[in-house]
Amino acid sequence: MHDNLHRATWIWYPDDYEIWLHQKVSVLRQFRGYICPPSWRLDAAYTSVKFRKIFELEEPELLTLSVQGDFVLLMDGSMTPIPYEKTQITSVQIPAGHHELTVNVYNDREIPAMFASGETCGTDGTWEVTALNGKWVPAASWHFDDIVHPPAAFPFHYETIQPAAITETDEGVIVDFGQETFGTVTFLGAAGRGRIHLYYGESLEEAMAGEGAETFDTLSVDSSEPLDLATSVTRAFRYIQIKKDPGVSYGRVEHQYEYLLMERRGGFNCSDSRLNEIWEVSARTLHINMREFLYDGMKRDRWVWSGDANLGFLINNYSFFDQDVTKRTMIALRGKDPVEFHINTIMDYTLYWFLSLHDYYLYSGDVAFIRSSYPKLISLMEFCLNRCNEAGMLEGYPEDWVFIDWAPMERRGELAAEQLLLCRSLEAAALFAGEVGDSEKKARYSELAAQLKETIFRLFWDDEQGGLIHGRHEGELNRQLLKYPSIFAARFDYLNEGQRVAVREKVLKNDTVQQINTPFMRFFELDALCLLGEHDHVFQEIRQYWGGMLDLGATTFWEEYDPDLPAELQYDMYGDKFRKSLCHAWGAAPIYLIGKYMLGVKPTEPGYSRYRVEPKLCGLDWMEGKVPTPDGEIAVYMDAQRIRVTSNASGIGTLKFRSHTKPSVNAGELSVVGEDEYELLLAMPSCDYEIEFGKVDVHA
Amino acid sequence: MHDNLHRATWIWYPDDYEIWLHQKVSVLRQFRGYICPPSWRLDAAYTSVKFRKIFELEEPELLTLSVQGDFVLLMDGSMTPIPYEKTQITSVQIPAGHHELTVNVYNDREIPAMFASGETCGTDGTWEVTALNGKWVPAASWHFDDIVHPPAAFPFHYETIQPAAITETDEGVIVDFGQETFGTVTFLGAAGRGRIHLYYGESLEEAMAGEGAETFDTLSVDSSEPLDLATSVTRAFRYIQIKKDPGVSYGRVEHQYEYLLMERRGGFNCSDSRLNEIWEVSARTLHINMREFLYDGMKRDRWVWSGDANLGFLINNYSFFDQDVTKRTMIALRGKDPVEFHINTIMDYTLYWFLSLHDYYLYSGDVAFIRSSYPKLISLMEFCLNRCNEAGMLEGYPEDWVFIDWAPMERRGELAAEQLLLCRSLEAAALFAGEVGDSEKKARYSELAAQLKETIFRLFWDDEQGGLIHGRHEGELNRQLLKYPSIFAARFDYLNEGQRVAVREKVLKNDTVQQINTPFMRFFELDALCLLGEHDHVFQEIRQYWGGMLDLGATTFWEEYDPDLPAELQYDMYGDKFRKSLCHAWGAAPIYLIGKYMLGVKPTEPGYSRYRVEPKLCGLDWMEGKVPTPDGEIAVYMDAQRIRVTSNASGIGTLKFRSHTKPSVNAGELSVVGEDEYELLLAMPSCDYEIEFGKVDVHA
Repeated sequence: MHDNLHRATWIWYPDDYEIWLHQKVSVLRQFRGYICPPSWRLDAAYTSVKFRKIFELEEPELLTLSVQGDFVLLMDGSMTPIPYEKTQITSVQIPAGHHELTVNVYNDREIPAMFASGETCGTDGTWEVTALNGKWVPAASWHFDDIVHPPAAFPFHYETIQPAAITETDEGVIVDFGQETFGTVTFLGAAGRGRIHLYYGESLEEAMAGEGAETFDTLSVDSSEPLDLATSVTRAFRYIQIKKDPGVSYGRVEHQYEYLLMERRGGFNCSDSRLNEIWEVSARTLHINMREFLYDGMKRDRWVWSGDANLGFLINNYSFFDQDVTKRTMIALRGKDPVEFHINTIMDYTLYWFLSLHDYYLYSGDVAFIRSSYPKLISLMEFCLNRCNEAGMLEGYPEDWVFIDWAPMERRGELAAEQLLLCRSLEAAALFAGEVGDSEKKARYSELAAQLKETIFRLFWDDEQGGLIHGRHEGELNRQLLKYPSIFAARFDYLNEGQRVAVREKVLKNDTVQQINTPFMRFFELDALCLLGEHDHVFQEIRQYWGGMLDLGATTFWEEYDPDLPAELQYDMYGDKFRKSLCHAWGAAPIYLIGKYMLGVKPTEPGYSRYRVEPKLCGLDWMEGKVPTPDGEIAVYMDAQRIRVTSNASGIGTLKFRSHTKPSVNAGELSVVGEDEYELLLAMPSCDYEIEFGKVDVHA
Repeated sequence: MHDNLHRATWIWYPDDYEIWLHQKVSVLRQFRGYICPPSWRLDAAYTSVKFRKIFELEEPELLTLSVQGDFVLLMDGSMTPIPYEKTQITSVQIPAGHHELTVNVYNDREIPAMFASGETCGTDGTWEVTALNGKWVPAASWHFDDIVHPPAAFPFHYETIQPAAITETDEGVIVDFGQETFGTVTFLGAAGRGRIHLYYGESLEEAMAGEGAETFDTLSVDSSEPLDLATSVTRAFRYIQIKKDPGVSYGRVEHQYEYLLMERRGGFNCSDSRLNEIWEVSARTLHINMREFLYDGMKRDRWVWSGDANLGFLINNYSFFDQDVTKRTMIALRGKDPVEFHINTIMDYTLYWFLSLHDYYLYSGDVAFIRSSYPKLISLMEFCLNRCNEAGMLEGYPEDWVFIDWAPMERRGELAAEQLLLCRSLEAAALFAGEVGDSEKKARYSELAAQLKETIFRLFWDDEQGGLIHGRHEGELNRQLLKYPSIFAARFDYLNEGQRVAVREKVLKNDTVQQINTPFMRFFELDALCLLGEHDHVFQEIRQYWGGMLDLGATTFWEEYDPDLPAELQYDMYGDKFRKSLCHAWGAAPIYLIGKYMLGVKPTEPGYSRYRVEPKLCGLDWMEGKVPTPDGEIAVYMDAQRIRVTSNASGIGTLKFRSHTKPSVNAGELSVVGEDEYELLLAMPSCDYEIEFGKVDVHA
């Protein structure tokens, strides 16, 4: 059937696939058998759309087509439908000459979508679509390229996994799959009459807790013939406690691991096996949480959170580099207009959306996505600006969640941390306005950002304390020194040299300042510390903190980890036993920190058209690894004697390193850029650059 | 189960019932087996909402509840659900004291809705609901007061109707139900194997046309035992041609008429039986089209059109006075934010929405609905104002449909008719802003309306032609004299006395001006003519024009009727045989014209708190009738000797009449207000006022 047909793909209204999918997955969260819908507005895809295509054909052409939904075919503006056979895959003849085909589709279960393919034309981005909202836009698509696979089913991959161990208990068995996993469970050869109860646990303790576990399922068996019986809802677990009624039997139990097929394009290996294991477990942690969208964690929320995703995206950039997940997540987070409330109801999470888009652009260089997101970016920014007070600052409304971090702090009034996020968001919006040619908005947002930055430092910079104070409430400054605003100011490069030193010494490395307790904010803190030159300190932290979870048997990294807690309290969170997620995307932070600050690779222009490589051994004997870019990988090796950099990507890099001895290079020309500081331009395609540190001290 | 329980009703998020229902019914239109979705955006209800209620109980109370959708019960802000039995009707115990119950509901098929009833509390407007959009609002409800009848099924009534006549044809039979009807068809005792084809016709010719009819259905029979087989989709028809395969038999065919139960609160009877029949057929026409919403016509579109509804609402006000249909229709038309396009894609139809709301308020006095509609009213008005040009006038955008009427005319540029609709809309919006206490918007819209009226008359009033010219395009005046702007200016009372005379004589009664050909615009024309004092002319028109349809066998009034067309072309429209609707709501116009200008009853203050009665016999020997108001009816009788007015409504009326003889009254005091003109204040509750015209000429 597909012979001689033009390549085609399933098409739909832009963003609607993501918005539909997001609604669908957002309501999968359950707690002990009860639904737990998210506390933010769920948007819906349009149910009624029209596709159109203008054909200029020399010969009549038979279009083979399939439509997801009820539909009608119209030609050249006529109100009278073209007849067609009402079969799953049908066809219509387009006459020679200039003709416009319109396909009206209605579907209130899945998104309206269509696939059509002829000898010379097929559904693709040259087809247009309208949601009957006054505008025609190019149709959107993904990789649904087969007429028999419409976009209703997400293209997961599956792997059947056998238990690693089965232990009998008084009441049943405990099945251990050896490590954290996600999917459904099948009982092969189940027979008899009665029920099978499954109590899932990310920890053994949780599975043993029976109805005290966060999730459980019950299957009913009623068959004298043995049959295979599977659970219907996917769950996250390592252990399952299984109890069955006496009248029920089954042959064995196995598990279908459900996952998104992704290539691990980044990698890391070094002389410290603990660090290697941390990288590996981080990658597995992220993979389990990267699916339809980038989730926070799969056991409990299974939700898309903008702040969490901001970290996840960055980690993804140094591992899988799957930008499709990022785009789907950004579209889902943004939802539809009108903007009535902050993303995830959290004021800071709205602002992280702009930061994530900025990161996305820097790492991917994908200006088309910036362009397609632009109208919604503007309406989101205008929503924020409409909520600014006379000083141009954002204060939380009574119904807003002002989060920043799980920690005690004043949340009312003008918080310095929130203004820094807003300032950075304005800068990002100004950049995007420039990229799409909206010079009026570019000027306006740049001006607002500059004013706001001036306001922030004028009001909140405290020379004596050496950092930014907490904020202002009802005109009164709150001089409390917390780490958040200083972390953000460092990350956004808003500090001058004196301020950098002050922040590093008096705030971030100051034990008397309230410590950060969440991996979420620790990510930003460690990022800031690296930016302030504290690499060795950061990588000691990684070994200890993430290593501590490994010592407790972690097979994926956790939502929260306090080394000082006794073991029996390690799974508690939000006031409930076992509520803590033991496979949480933000737990994978080491991948980002290792890639960006040990391998030292980062883009400086969108899409790695320009990038820097500044490797740091941080006490290792040797390390090697690679960092993905849109069109290739940058591989780095370093030991005490040499650095090797190989890239099959198209961008131009700058290698920077320190050396007390005089180095030599096999290609390119070294520049001295400071005392013991060298730079090498990495401009030759596919060149294996090798720098040998000399034996002679340059200062000798 | 309901014993001793507090009265309760099903509740949901405001407007979502109407928006959900509108989407559902909008896609029922079919053309010869193909779907025909509307050409405007279909909005969807929220799928995820939270209800909440604060209880202050002296004793614990058992709430009996049922929820339409998946749900979870939470108490006092806890994240841990309250357990409940998962049955259709379940219960939960509310402890004594101060407690907040939250019910999260998800439903992507019907609207999320709930019903709960205890000894002292039940779901009603004191419960609040949020769509997780940052605001809690009072929950909405209608008349779903029974826990076992959730709002998924619309509460229609049904009546089984037997055929009036069955005629055999060569290929089958023609079943005639005697008059226009709507619903499904049942074959009793169908047996055998094969198919039954039904070809529906509003006219005999259409049913006879087989697959040339607008709608047809096919039923499959496959049973050796006789069974009753019904069609699944409701259709509008009088006749059905039935053809069946030889292997199929059935006992008899009957029809389930599906309708909204409404009381005919208005009435009319007079010495002219033709006019009585016109009133009766008008009422039946309107009734068939007033269902979930006020539709245009039930055979073809089954859609809600804002301009059509503007007429339908007015007719309803003089017959059924069912304001619930009006509210549902207004909510459905308005849809959700953001406003991206005009209502029904038609620029004038957006403006009619404001006019309809104004009429609704005047006839119902329902300020609560004005208040609940206010935010959407504002966003719709701001959408219009954002599209105004520098002169403050609306020009159609390329994608807009500028309709006005089915007639040849220039549609580009600043059309006088559109500006008059906008001016009236601004006045209405200013009125509503005042009613809800938004003084800033009241001032702004009043000012804009005054400026626009000044602009309209300065640019478009043509003293020489005696009316308003057509408009201006690219700076150039279009001096064509068409009736539309003059009709609107007269209806909105924008003309001074000289202009009124000029418009009446030089425009509306001028045979050389392009004539109006649609019942839609004829309604407005006849309304304007009455306002200009041409009652006798208008009621002659009604007898002839609507009587002409009766002469052609109409049992309901049509979408269009041109007396000059030959009979065989009477069912043609939009270039297709039988596309014309023979049961079209706007065809019921005579009810409005009779009620408002013959019985002469109209509100002058919202909700008939003040009203006027100015009966006119228009050549009849006698007439009697009643006009509904929110809280009673105003009955009027008139013949050459007397007028009787009886009202059981609470408002205060003013009866005005002319008499050459000196009249006497049985109650109240007559005022002389002009030459031969008298007024009587109708202020006494339930008084039967009777005015006897005297025998003595007052001027003698």
